[in-house]
Amino acid sequence: MTLAEFGAPTSPPEVPSELISELRTIVGDRGWTSDPADLEPQLRDWVGYARGATPIMVMPKNASEVAAVVKACVAAGVPIVPQGGNTGSVAGAIPQGEILVSLRRMNRIRDIDAADYTVTVDAGVVLAEVQAAANEVDRFFPLSIGSEGSCTIGGNVSTNAGGTAVLRYGNMRDLVLGLEVVLPDGRVWDGLRRLRKDNTGYALKHLFMGAEGTLGIVTGAVLRLFPKPVEVATAFVALRDLDASIELLSLLRVATGDALSSLEVMPRIGIEIAREFDPEVVDPLSERHDWYAIVEVSGTKADGQTESTLEVALGEAVERGILVDATIAASTMQAKSIWRIRKSLVLNLPKVGAEVKHDVAVPVSKQPEFIRRATAAVEETVPGTRAVAYGHFGDGNVHFNLCAPLGMDASTFTARAADLHRAVYDIAAEYGGSFAAEHGIGIVKRSEMKRYRSPVEIDLMRQFKALLDPDGLFNPGKVLP
Amino acid sequence: MTLAEFGAPTSPPEVPSELISELRTIVGDRGWTSDPADLEPQLRDWVGYARGATPIMVMPKNASEVAAVVKACVAAGVPIVPQGGNTGSVAGAIPQGEILVSLRRMNRIRDIDAADYTVTVDAGVVLAEVQAAANEVDRFFPLSIGSEGSCTIGGNVSTNAGGTAVLRYGNMRDLVLGLEVVLPDGRVWDGLRRLRKDNTGYALKHLFMGAEGTLGIVTGAVLRLFPKPVEVATAFVALRDLDASIELLSLLRVATGDALSSLEVMPRIGIEIAREFDPEVVDPLSERHDWYAIVEVSGTKADGQTESTLEVALGEAVERGILVDATIAASTMQAKSIWRIRKSLVLNLPKVGAEVKHDVAVPVSKQPEFIRRATAAVEETVPGTRAVAYGHFGDGNVHFNLCAPLGMDASTFTARAADLHRAVYDIAAEYGGSFAAEHGIGIVKRSEMKRYRSPVEIDLMRQFKALLDPDGLFNPGKVLP
Repeated sequence: MTLAEFGAPTSPPEVPSELISELRTIVGDRGWTSDPADLEPQLRDWVGYARGATPIMVMPKNASEVAAVVKACVAAGVPIVPQGGNTGSVAGAIPQGEILVSLRRMNRIRDIDAADYTVTVDAGVVLAEVQAAANEVDRFFPLSIGSEGSCTIGGNVSTNAGGTAVLRYGNMRDLVLGLEVVLPDGRVWDGLRRLRKDNTGYALKHLFMGAEGTLGIVTGAVLRLFPKPVEVATAFVALRDLDASIELLSLLRVATGDALSSLEVMPRIGIEIAREFDPEVVDPLSERHDWYAIVEVSGTKADGQTESTLEVALGEAVERGILVDATIAASTMQAKSIWRIRKSLVLNLPKVGAEVKHDVAVPVSKQPEFIRRATAAVEETVPGTRAVAYGHFGDGNVHFNLCAPLGMDASTFTARAADLHRAVYDIAAEYGGSFAAEHGIGIVKRSEMKRYRSPVEIDLMRQFKALLDPDGLFNPGKVLP
Repeated sequence: MTLAEFGAPTSPPEVPSELISELRTIVGDRGWTSDPADLEPQLRDWVGYARGATPIMVMPKNASEVAAVVKACVAAGVPIVPQGGNTGSVAGAIPQGEILVSLRRMNRIRDIDAADYTVTVDAGVVLAEVQAAANEVDRFFPLSIGSEGSCTIGGNVSTNAGGTAVLRYGNMRDLVLGLEVVLPDGRVWDGLRRLRKDNTGYALKHLFMGAEGTLGIVTGAVLRLFPKPVEVATAFVALRDLDASIELLSLLRVATGDALSSLEVMPRIGIEIAREFDPEVVDPLSERHDWYAIVEVSGTKADGQTESTLEVALGEAVERGILVDATIAASTMQAKSIWRIRKSLVLNLPKVGAEVKHDVAVPVSKQPEFIRRATAAVEETVPGTRAVAYGHFGDGNVHFNLCAPLGMDASTFTARAADLHRAVYDIAAEYGGSFAAEHGIGIVKRSEMKRYRSPVEIDLMRQFKALLDPDGLFNPGKVLP
């Protein structure tokens, strides 16, 4: 699908050449590019929804330059799209002719303080670099997502990124103590406080987090650090059935002292896909089962107990009939091999056939019911559809992804995307669920906002948008329906 | 001081008798009172700042009734003050002639789900009742504050309550998954989703949390539950000096696998005050030291290791010269006796002489420096002032409370309150600190907002207030300067 099909604006805004000159002056010679070769990777959406366009990409090197860029654009009435690592899944950072403001040159770690368990960074710092900087001072930054080698902190903040460690450490929002934001009127809000408790008025920072750049541009953040996990135990288990996943979660949270850091559930077809396209993937268990889970427990205490704790807990789960088989990784290599199944699945799923994706959240206990009903519903909508439901079961986050029936061509299947979405999201909504658990709205899910969020909620959001960005110049056409 | 001295409005609003009749009809016979005896405890601020006034207290029994009350008041242009347990420290819930809306009759636990680790409650449910309900289903709700026997969830949400378990579990804000709010225009926003991940637009719930009822009335909430701590180990330790508190924090977070649930530091004078007024308080250590801490580690794994872990960690701290003495409670009774020191200190501090209080937060690592400098500054301001600095050191939250010099009478000392505040808050501000860590702003700290928060920040807050409550009818005169 093209972005226009999602309701994106079809004609680009007019950008006066005087503005282009002014922007060049603000950011200096090394701070901008209009070279199509440079722009190409910044305009391409990796999911494949869209190819964007921009007259210029500016790369300011600090918040003052961002503010100057904003003021110039606002004065000229020209819209702006902010961009970090461009790794989003909903085309939220793709410009359609707007000025592209890349935060990539703002890549300093401003301060790291082990005693405070905090790090203060520019928005353009890559997530993996923050993880590494924390590691160097014997601390841990827990956010972990597939794109961590190229996504940036500003993007993580603006999309409230999730990932595999949310169960234990929370979403990005929960990891941010303070923020620096350039507002749509060009003022800089310095909210870079590194406090654990601060009840002085309204929680401004939360409004900018998850707003996908529609209310301003995040330029810096203070992040929470944690003690390093020094012992990690990983297991691959076969579940009695889908319902057993919830019983396992309850048992493991208690039995491990809430040290469970991941519970990733996947169906048999997930392993088969991983093995088909990645010869290095092995099935760790000898027999075939319908549902599996990867279990990870992280101990921050170096007492050699993490693995034995997991062993005892899984033994109890087998005894209670929750699990039918289980294996614990005996080495880091074996643990990597277990996680490879999950990674290969995500990577190779598109090769199986046209994918129609859903990043759904429902209450934790409702996941099995949701998956069963949604699977039946898509079968009814497009018979033969292959549902691959996997996800972060500790958080209620199901990636309900669909491959075309065998023999059906891609375009025939994706032509039914809207019907499939409707079937899946309607069921999620019945459980009080969300149609956008961790990937956000961007352009792609705007129309769902209207259907699944109440008029009161949409109206409040529109009011906040109109208040902060009255001319609608910040990431126009994103998030709000 | 009276509220008028804090800049509260001095003349009460006019309330037409037609509105009073209408409100009575909405909430029914048992839903209102104007009896001075009933009203007395609701109008008295327990800190002693103020005696409030109201023509009527209405007690709606559900969100629809709250909405009807709001609509009637807004139509008549009459302001409203919402109130929960009336246990705040900054007179934030005391009316000055406004309609008092008490949430106390909204006291249902709507749903509790152990598998989801969630509980959904009315705003008027008392905190201790939520703790008890969680306990019954083998779960744990961690918020713990002195007033837990009478404060309500709506108040906890509206003030973003803190307390002694923040280090491990976060502030109230971090424990809320979903909210139900009656907006100032009388619409009900149903945001009662019980999802761990939900990135569908702006984070509306966060704006209402900590807003102290100035942006609407919280009527319900979905709260996160946790596995029950099954083993708690408590110690009383003597620190080498104040700086050792930060070294101890770093050591304990790592050595206990981040299971440290409290680190409460207090000076020698704290124990002396507790012992003077409470004969049951004993000094657990044989010698006198300048600085002490209460350390609590909570294990959610029943493996008998929590106490030995703490023992090993404290042994290491003694070896490294961080501690000069330490004792671990050998029984629940001994643990209670250790906590009694802390509780008696808080309870009896007012008896020592007029108190001038500061609920300050600074970055964790700056607490010792802050306390030294602030102690010197108040000595310079009012020589002989007895500073009692204690608090939640894991969160950077220092209760910097001052008693009058020996022999100085109360009114002479409290007459200097403004100068003492200035001295203390100015130093906190130098460290990027907060003048309101967990108690909020209410009426009492409004003027500090203007001095210590940037014009950009105040302006944003004013804009949000004007947007949601254009007539200024919700808890007027609170929070904003």
